[in-house]
Amino acid sequence: MPLLGLLPRRAWAALLSQLLRPPCASCTGPVRCQSQVAEAVLTSQLKAHQEKPNFIIKTPKGTRDLSPQHMVVREKILDLVISCFKRHGAKGMDTPAFELKETLTEKYGEDSGLMYDLKDQGGELLSLRYDLTVPFARYLAMNKVKKMKRYHVGKVWRRESPAIVQGRYREFCQCDFDIAGQFDPMIPDAECLKIMCEILSGLQLGDFLIKMAWKDVRHEMVAKKGLAPEVADRIGDYVQCHGGVSLVEQMFQDPRLSQNKQALEGLGDLKLLFEYLTLFGIADKISFDLSLARGLDYYTGVIYEAVLLQTPIQAGEDPLNVGSVAAGGRYDGLVGMFHPKGHKVPCVGLSIGVERIFYIVEQRMKNKGEKVRTTETQVFVATPQKNFLQERLKLIAELWDSGIKAEMLYKNNPKLLTQLHYCESTGIPLVVIIGEQELKEGVIKIRSVASREEVAIKRENLVAEIQKRLSES
Amino acid sequence: MPLLGLLPRRAWAALLSQLLRPPCASCTGPVRCQSQVAEAVLTSQLKAHQEKPNFIIKTPKGTRDLSPQHMVVREKILDLVISCFKRHGAKGMDTPAFELKETLTEKYGEDSGLMYDLKDQGGELLSLRYDLTVPFARYLAMNKVKKMKRYHVGKVWRRESPAIVQGRYREFCQCDFDIAGQFDPMIPDAECLKIMCEILSGLQLGDFLIKMAWKDVRHEMVAKKGLAPEVADRIGDYVQCHGGVSLVEQMFQDPRLSQNKQALEGLGDLKLLFEYLTLFGIADKISFDLSLARGLDYYTGVIYEAVLLQTPIQAGEDPLNVGSVAAGGRYDGLVGMFHPKGHKVPCVGLSIGVERIFYIVEQRMKNKGEKVRTTETQVFVATPQKNFLQERLKLIAELWDSGIKAEMLYKNNPKLLTQLHYCESTGIPLVVIIGEQELKEGVIKIRSVASREEVAIKRENLVAEIQKRLSES
Repeated sequence: MPLLGLLPRRAWAALLSQLLRPPCASCTGPVRCQSQVAEAVLTSQLKAHQEKPNFIIKTPKGTRDLSPQHMVVREKILDLVISCFKRHGAKGMDTPAFELKETLTEKYGEDSGLMYDLKDQGGELLSLRYDLTVPFARYLAMNKVKKMKRYHVGKVWRRESPAIVQGRYREFCQCDFDIAGQFDPMIPDAECLKIMCEILSGLQLGDFLIKMAWKDVRHEMVAKKGLAPEVADRIGDYVQCHGGVSLVEQMFQDPRLSQNKQALEGLGDLKLLFEYLTLFGIADKISFDLSLARGLDYYTGVIYEAVLLQTPIQAGEDPLNVGSVAAGGRYDGLVGMFHPKGHKVPCVGLSIGVERIFYIVEQRMKNKGEKVRTTETQVFVATPQKNFLQERLKLIAELWDSGIKAEMLYKNNPKLLTQLHYCESTGIPLVVIIGEQELKEGVIKIRSVASREEVAIKRENLVAEIQKRLSES
Repeated sequence: MPLLGLLPRRAWAALLSQLLRPPCASCTGPVRCQSQVAEAVLTSQLKAHQEKPNFIIKTPKGTRDLSPQHMVVREKILDLVISCFKRHGAKGMDTPAFELKETLTEKYGEDSGLMYDLKDQGGELLSLRYDLTVPFARYLAMNKVKKMKRYHVGKVWRRESPAIVQGRYREFCQCDFDIAGQFDPMIPDAECLKIMCEILSGLQLGDFLIKMAWKDVRHEMVAKKGLAPEVADRIGDYVQCHGGVSLVEQMFQDPRLSQNKQALEGLGDLKLLFEYLTLFGIADKISFDLSLARGLDYYTGVIYEAVLLQTPIQAGEDPLNVGSVAAGGRYDGLVGMFHPKGHKVPCVGLSIGVERIFYIVEQRMKNKGEKVRTTETQVFVATPQKNFLQERLKLIAELWDSGIKAEMLYKNNPKLLTQLHYCESTGIPLVVIIGEQELKEGVIKIRSVASREEVAIKRENLVAEIQKRLSES
């Protein structure tokens, strides 16, 4: 927020030059003309880049600007994601872009080296947030919140080797939904999976599947849990079938599993989960995956990931598009890491891989040759005549004050054709035209850009007529 | 986006413990129970904070979390601001949170020391963006864009001594609107002032005034421009009158000014501006200020700032609230600083001081005892009976799939009173109740939380009935 402060001398020289612009392009004598003053003002500033001929104008490695075209796609996708989160009763929240470095330490395992640290400028040691989950856990612990359903949309930063071609960047947006609190088992977990399904269905990205991780379980079972190898093998056999509900049911019918107390209890939660998923109508979307593995340290329960299944119809697309577009899991220990006494707040959540989704949607639009409007302007204010700037300004202010999205050209005397071309190229649907005759008759012409039809409307009815047309279209 | 990666051993141990949860709270023998495994999983992680007893859980100095309450206020204000920007035909865009340090160098004068630098981790030297204007200019130059009307809402970072009490933070949100391009004089400038007025009126913050800076002009006039001291004094006299249109007109009628070529030309632009402001119906909102000064280096023209005028009615408010809530100006030289050949793209823009506005609105709500809902949930799914979890899950999925915002408690057997209390405390307007009798009769009860009236609706008509009630309310 650029509030009151001291204005440097240079800026005052510039301000002065604006106020005292000379009447001619060149001038002599003690009073220097504006462009000369402006040059002087900029000289010392320009040095910065001119003295470094190798200075390249670019965004930092692994980052990019989001153009208006990108933003339109993003806005639509984020709207859909956020409205799903709100449909499930989530509250919004935000945390600072950076945290105390210590807050993030020991949370991400081997990935910690990918954190962006801030320079020590004489204060706290800070790092840019690496995800939205650890800041959420820190927030819960710091505010002693024991129960919360929240969503968080924001940027996170990771110093990964950027493979920009695949839509992976060092700065990217995350959309997280999490449920914190002690509840009866598997109900919030099932809701997280339901949310994933709602969002992926809503985005119409094609068929998808949510895969639950199972890799290395056999090794862990035998080596760490001391489970009989044949029981572990039995579970492994079922897992390799890649089934959802039926897998769980089959396991239960196997006496070698259903008679093993540990196996039974573990499978009991899974059975409960699949029962809820069936009630939610999404059990067929869930399966197990032998090879799936997640990269973060804090997960403590079932880990899942959603992948898109490419259909032959979309063969024109980059095969790299197929892959994980959402992920989540349980992290019951994370909040406790911030409590001095280790008080636990169990959590389960999910993260939508919106960057990959943005990329896929943009690629599809590109392949189909679809264009998006980057403005929402509804009406363009035009004139066919010279010296009508004042009338255009009066008219456009009327439209703005009535809440109508309106534009005009910032020229004293633009050509009518230029004005109409502007509407066609930017997709503005309506033009209102004011000229000498309209002014005399107290009317305004409305022109539909698509049909090129024009009709004269009484000035006092103009806003109502525009609103009527906009509501019909 | 937490995509596929390697799952560390610890996480697998945890996953395993979830799958193989033991049937009893304590267990012995070679198979360790879940809580023991979870402990083991967390041991090394917990070390981080437990070994440092002085570790305080906090956000970095000068930053804060935004709670759901904050977010609701913000969302409303940002919606209003952004819809005004869109009404004026602006496109959205975004830039990375950090830039090459060199991009930001020499742009902010004495303020440069307040930039957050990133640590040199073996790559480019980076700094967090200090405002949205310099990144915009860099974007224009980098993409050779000569004309653009864009808005940008995003966080910026400044290492100022935080005076949190006044609502100033080291991380804060900016809302910028800028018009880049060579146009006929003062038309875009007038639109920027119009936008400021629309937003400040729309926010209903009370009376406001937009002040144009005039400080030091006399000194600059005489010492740097060589203007006759008596002409500068004459202008100074007028400026001290604090008038808008009339001031400019009076100046023109003064032969000592209207016969001075430099003064005349400088005043000519001002006259044009006030003519346009009059057509926009906002000339009375603009005045000059002798003491006003801006803090940034890149301004080259008229600089303006909007201040709120506290009325006696709002006497209960913190007097610190009064102050600048929007600012802007012309910066014709900034884009050229990035062009190798210094090609200029004239720009004019404004920045809404949303952080101060958030603060003012929050204070007012606090003073009035106003509460905001932090969720948008429309319907709560309740049951008066035990063992109705399955029916509740089926019902809530039906609502979600129909786009209705719905919640339920994550308990197998919650008490009805607990469920109804939840609705009252969170402001959910409707409850749908399913019990044994309803199930038998194929109906659902709808209860209005406010009136406590209940009515039974056929199950198949439920969604339509809810939608009808929601559209009426």
